[in-house]
Amino acid sequence: MAAEPQYQRIAALVRGRIAAGDLRAGERLPAIRALAGELGVGRRTVEEAYAELTAEGLLEARHGQGTFVADPARGPARGSGPWVSGHREPIVTSVAVSAGQVLREALRPDRRPDQISFILGAPAADLFPVGELQRALNAALREEGAGALGYEATEGYAPLRAALAHHLLGLGIAAGPDEVIVTSGAQQAIDLALRALTRPGDYVVTESPTYLGILEACEANGVRLIGVPLDDAGMEVERLAPLLAEHRPKLLLTIPDCHNPTGITMSLARRRALLALARSHGLPILEEDAYGELRYGGTPVPRLRALPGGERVIYVSSFSKVMLPGLRLGYLLASGDLHRRILFVKQASDRASGSLVQRAICRCLASRRLRSYLRVVSRRCRERRDAMLAALARELPPGARWTVPDGGLWVWVRLPDGVSALALYAAALAHGVVVAPGGAYFPDGGDPPFVALNFAAQPPERIAEGVRRLGLALRDVLTPRAQAPAP
Amino acid sequence: MAAEPQYQRIAALVRGRIAAGDLRAGERLPAIRALAGELGVGRRTVEEAYAELTAEGLLEARHGQGTFVADPARGPARGSGPWVSGHREPIVTSVAVSAGQVLREALRPDRRPDQISFILGAPAADLFPVGELQRALNAALREEGAGALGYEATEGYAPLRAALAHHLLGLGIAAGPDEVIVTSGAQQAIDLALRALTRPGDYVVTESPTYLGILEACEANGVRLIGVPLDDAGMEVERLAPLLAEHRPKLLLTIPDCHNPTGITMSLARRRALLALARSHGLPILEEDAYGELRYGGTPVPRLRALPGGERVIYVSSFSKVMLPGLRLGYLLASGDLHRRILFVKQASDRASGSLVQRAICRCLASRRLRSYLRVVSRRCRERRDAMLAALARELPPGARWTVPDGGLWVWVRLPDGVSALALYAAALAHGVVVAPGGAYFPDGGDPPFVALNFAAQPPERIAEGVRRLGLALRDVLTPRAQAPAP
Repeated sequence: MAAEPQYQRIAALVRGRIAAGDLRAGERLPAIRALAGELGVGRRTVEEAYAELTAEGLLEARHGQGTFVADPARGPARGSGPWVSGHREPIVTSVAVSAGQVLREALRPDRRPDQISFILGAPAADLFPVGELQRALNAALREEGAGALGYEATEGYAPLRAALAHHLLGLGIAAGPDEVIVTSGAQQAIDLALRALTRPGDYVVTESPTYLGILEACEANGVRLIGVPLDDAGMEVERLAPLLAEHRPKLLLTIPDCHNPTGITMSLARRRALLALARSHGLPILEEDAYGELRYGGTPVPRLRALPGGERVIYVSSFSKVMLPGLRLGYLLASGDLHRRILFVKQASDRASGSLVQRAICRCLASRRLRSYLRVVSRRCRERRDAMLAALARELPPGARWTVPDGGLWVWVRLPDGVSALALYAAALAHGVVVAPGGAYFPDGGDPPFVALNFAAQPPERIAEGVRRLGLALRDVLTPRAQAPAP
Repeated sequence: MAAEPQYQRIAALVRGRIAAGDLRAGERLPAIRALAGELGVGRRTVEEAYAELTAEGLLEARHGQGTFVADPARGPARGSGPWVSGHREPIVTSVAVSAGQVLREALRPDRRPDQISFILGAPAADLFPVGELQRALNAALREEGAGALGYEATEGYAPLRAALAHHLLGLGIAAGPDEVIVTSGAQQAIDLALRALTRPGDYVVTESPTYLGILEACEANGVRLIGVPLDDAGMEVERLAPLLAEHRPKLLLTIPDCHNPTGITMSLARRRALLALARSHGLPILEEDAYGELRYGGTPVPRLRALPGGERVIYVSSFSKVMLPGLRLGYLLASGDLHRRILFVKQASDRASGSLVQRAICRCLASRRLRSYLRVVSRRCRERRDAMLAALARELPPGARWTVPDGGLWVWVRLPDGVSALALYAAALAHGVVVAPGGAYFPDGGDPPFVALNFAAQPPERIAEGVRRLGLALRDVLTPRAQAPAP
């Protein structure tokens, strides 16, 4: 962490020279040793700066030839425009489309061991703090005995709610423990808010594309969707405004930080515009922040819930995405009448979340090891992101573009024109790699030319191999005839 | 267990003599020693027979005077008629009434330690198999490591589903592991079935009174209710028939074994009639069986799901009521399209239930210690039921009547005419005892003259003390002026 400023200063220098046109596409950069000598820094520092810029898609490493300025016509892009969403105007659905099949496929346990999956929204099992959790579980049972196994209050274990409120202070969010409701993962929090605020046929707003779990919860609740496109500053709030009076949506669901599946973080200006719009239309906002603590770069922006006017935002987070998805422990913040309504639905849904697990997580939070664990996970996930971005630059043919996520678990890939994501999904499966076809993330489904790739669930060498296979599959799809076996 | 036939034979003998009129109300029974000598059995055997009959309300022990035939005008009753439900015709609601407040009160953690609660639907914490669970958790983490902490398949951990299918064979239920869906308690199973099968405004059938959780889930789903009265053979199915064509309900929810809160078990004839009625109207049935393994007497009746024509019944059970409520682990059986629909809603609700807890319970089931543990819990709960019944006979004034449950956790008390259950609830609170006012269990709420008492959550001496306080509170309510302090 201490070295960041120096390599980042060098990265900024190179970035500036590319932006100014001093360094052009295809041009070779100084050798690492030479530049290190010139600048009077260590070789490792220059290496890190080049790696950062390669991850951003500004540079590309050609094997044995050195580092070059990348061609902006392919590869990652930070530019705005419709390429992230594939549509300019919001999508308004009359019925929700099932997105569930992809996720059900992903959760199937009967996977072949040689298959590489970029589909499951979880960090790698190799990063889970198993020993830490085991110590906490045993301590809770030893010290509290049967008291750790009775029904918990519907809102959750009071010391855990206090610990979460304290934890949120570190994100700039001031909330009392009485505003916290512990849930069975962020998924339940989303579903509870929909149940508390909507009736079948109501409209709900979200990003397009968006998280599969949001689409599924919307479908299960029978609501209609307004899917707002994103650009590199997040949800295009200004495109939403004209639709609000007509459809009177009951809830807006957004993932402002490290959006799933695009990895984009909403700008501060957009956040302010969104809060103002929601306030003037009396539109409740749910802010999903399951990935927000996995950041690898970029400037942190205040959470919606932490901004002036954000006090009534329903804030949702969980422990599933950064670790321990199988514990199913998430939480939400809500106040006043909203809190009361959500709590009632929680009680009717499952009475309360598991008491033992709440006690164990509470102990993990209190031990302060969670913070250091999160730092380790972030560092590893960043390495994996970089491995994914480097592999994409190496393996994907021209015409493919992808986002450079500042955090989270996902890279969003736009396929070359004319490629069917469903055909690529099938071809990739034949090559032993599982990717999520982009249509699953859109309110109107279909087969738009995108795939989502979770880079966090594999070590770097598996990522490289998986993307290599994906590149082969993409070439199969682009030139099917050339792949036919000779007679 | 081996002694049961002998004492039960003697109990049957005495029961027959009471029924035949040979022994009349108020008549004194032979002394235990004398009867034991006469019959050539041990004194303990006669004691057990008398205790059984006292628990049933047929006999009453008068301190220092011996055992007498009870007066049927007060105390427990097995007779049919409207006294169990307080209404003869089904209740048809236009909107569901909130039953949640009582339960929320019950779940509040800020209880005074000297307060005795008969309200929480759980066995006592002193019976939880803490050590067994701890061993299972540690074994799962030791042997499976991070594999025990990833996302589980939405339908649940496959070895657990297989173990549950095997376990159900012992209840006469033949089901494949593929029909099992693991849920977060029976409450979630009920809610999922409602979400999969109903839309707001639809009608749903249930017993009246019924389990709070059923009423809450119905309210959260916006359905209307047909509440069918019970007699001592369970839901009065014949009273339901005329309403089906008019209201076309989408689901019938029933608790045929050890009904909550009355403790009544539905007769075999009624079960057959219910299945026939449901089949002729295409009405799906959900059978809730959370208490069915806690039996203390009576003849076991086959589960609805185990009867001919019951193959499509949605069977729901859980580990919450017999032990470990805080683990939130239940399950349901469903097949075909129903299975698919419920699974989709489960995925949208919380993706899957906790993977570690599923593995731990699976290990507990495999160790065969659960069976012997259930035997211990049943024996203890029976002792507590008997303590409750004896205390009610001792402490409650004439005019009060109560059910004699064959199993489960609850006794259902009808108050003397003119007594408000809400007034009694308040008076009891002032005496340091918490009871559930009966209105919470009726589809149309109100203040009918009933209270529900959970006998399982306290040791016998606390039960005796709690019922003593309840008796004082009831006398306060019956003669409020006499209780005013002297000036």
